[in-house]
Amino acid sequence: MTFSEKLEAAVQTHNSSLCVGLDPNLALLPDPITNRDRTSTQQVALFLKKVIDATKPHCAAYKPNLGFFEALGPDGWDLLAGILDYIPNTKIVIADAKRGDISSTAEHYAREAFGRYGAHAVTVNPYLGTDAVAPYFEHGGGVIALCRTSNAGGADIQSLVADGKPVYAHVAEMVATQWTPMGDCGLVVGATYPAELAEVRALAPSLPLLVPGVGAQGGDAGEVVAAGADARGGGLIVNASRAVSYASGGSDFADAARAEAERLAASLRLP
Amino acid sequence: MTFSEKLEAAVQTHNSSLCVGLDPNLALLPDPITNRDRTSTQQVALFLKKVIDATKPHCAAYKPNLGFFEALGPDGWDLLAGILDYIPNTKIVIADAKRGDISSTAEHYAREAFGRYGAHAVTVNPYLGTDAVAPYFEHGGGVIALCRTSNAGGADIQSLVADGKPVYAHVAEMVATQWTPMGDCGLVVGATYPAELAEVRALAPSLPLLVPGVGAQGGDAGEVVAAGADARGGGLIVNASRAVSYASGGSDFADAARAEAERLAASLRLP
Repeated sequence: MTFSEKLEAAVQTHNSSLCVGLDPNLALLPDPITNRDRTSTQQVALFLKKVIDATKPHCAAYKPNLGFFEALGPDGWDLLAGILDYIPNTKIVIADAKRGDISSTAEHYAREAFGRYGAHAVTVNPYLGTDAVAPYFEHGGGVIALCRTSNAGGADIQSLVADGKPVYAHVAEMVATQWTPMGDCGLVVGATYPAELAEVRALAPSLPLLVPGVGAQGGDAGEVVAAGADARGGGLIVNASRAVSYASGGSDFADAARAEAERLAASLRLP
Repeated sequence: MTFSEKLEAAVQTHNSSLCVGLDPNLALLPDPITNRDRTSTQQVALFLKKVIDATKPHCAAYKPNLGFFEALGPDGWDLLAGILDYIPNTKIVIADAKRGDISSTAEHYAREAFGRYGAHAVTVNPYLGTDAVAPYFEHGGGVIALCRTSNAGGADIQSLVADGKPVYAHVAEMVATQWTPMGDCGLVVGATYPAELAEVRALAPSLPLLVPGVGAQGGDAGEVVAAGADARGGGLIVNASRAVSYASGGSDFADAARAEAERLAASLRLP
């Protein structure tokens, strides 16, 4: 099965196109996690497992943000491996690394993500072009390119207009026409820019779109589905990180995460 | 002292604008390192320390490529910390991470690179724009943006022409005008494209340029100096990785690394 097929299956199985982002931030851990005699690594492990337990009825995918795990130091990698092991195998795992390097380094990243960590897909930065991502395809798994990111500053470079269209549209076309023949691809387009999401969908009618920015960043779920779904009403995986996992900082944090995941999953279903 | 000042001092002190890239690749380690009963982490540590011993008379900086250390697994981070500790403190350390993420993740990366690892500068990917890099400046240290990378595929996005100039020129201007007021910056421009190096130098007359691609990737040292030096003949740090550290796969690997570093340093001096 390709990444796209696995993703479609997970969305069907769980009746949800929600992806829960796992961004462990020590400063945001709820009180019941931090008020005992635990190491910070133990705190994060316990917290993320409780978030996974709470949200797994309502999501199709999890997206660990590797930067947050790295920031925990050497223990962060063992922690990540333990968390990936804890995610039910009907879920899709997207390693959110946003890497972009020349091919000798990409080769290392690809082996790490798909080999060591068993991710189904990785996010990559397209700034280095096609030859830099080629090694990812040799290791199987999906490659999801940043296209129009959810932050305002994304426009600085991504919205420059070349040959009558913005850079992010060039990225969408490069991925759809140059990368897709090499392997299974997707695009990251922020929920915060629905018009640009619709534009990217038109340029890449059959690519899965990973859409961050719903929740804490202010994107609207209904607008995302209207702008980003493919012709069959699918092809979307919508990520919320902070809005779900840090829905409450109190003793009800797991219930609050479950409720927010359920609410978001429902809001993402076609009417 | 700012990163630029430290860099200038290191170049003067060592009479060299060479940066030696540290890209530990298990498949390329020389025989005398691998033919004993050592773990792969011990092999890499021994190898890199011997490369540092051999090259330190002839370089101003070291650039560990974090992707290669990550690929070694959890031990890779302890190894990196040990190697950074081994680098003489008259040298500049550039953490080559090529990161690019929205600000909450960038904050983590910044703390890791400048705090935990004590790097003087990090490389970042500019595709996410100005707001994504702002957190780096809060933690001090230099921020070196990818501009025109040394790989051929770099042209796919970087050479798209918007408003009469290529994307990499927009990046150079963004860094020179938007980022520099926030902190100490530099640009990465590949040695393999000397005409584009000259163009970037004209757009950013006072920014340090980190120039990879001399050596294994085929860039010419003389052309780099002619195209990239600033008005005072400085402002350049030229990186070679594989050409130095893997100059020989035999028992003479350290001597070969020393000889190649010496040769490159000499070729980078102004006539």
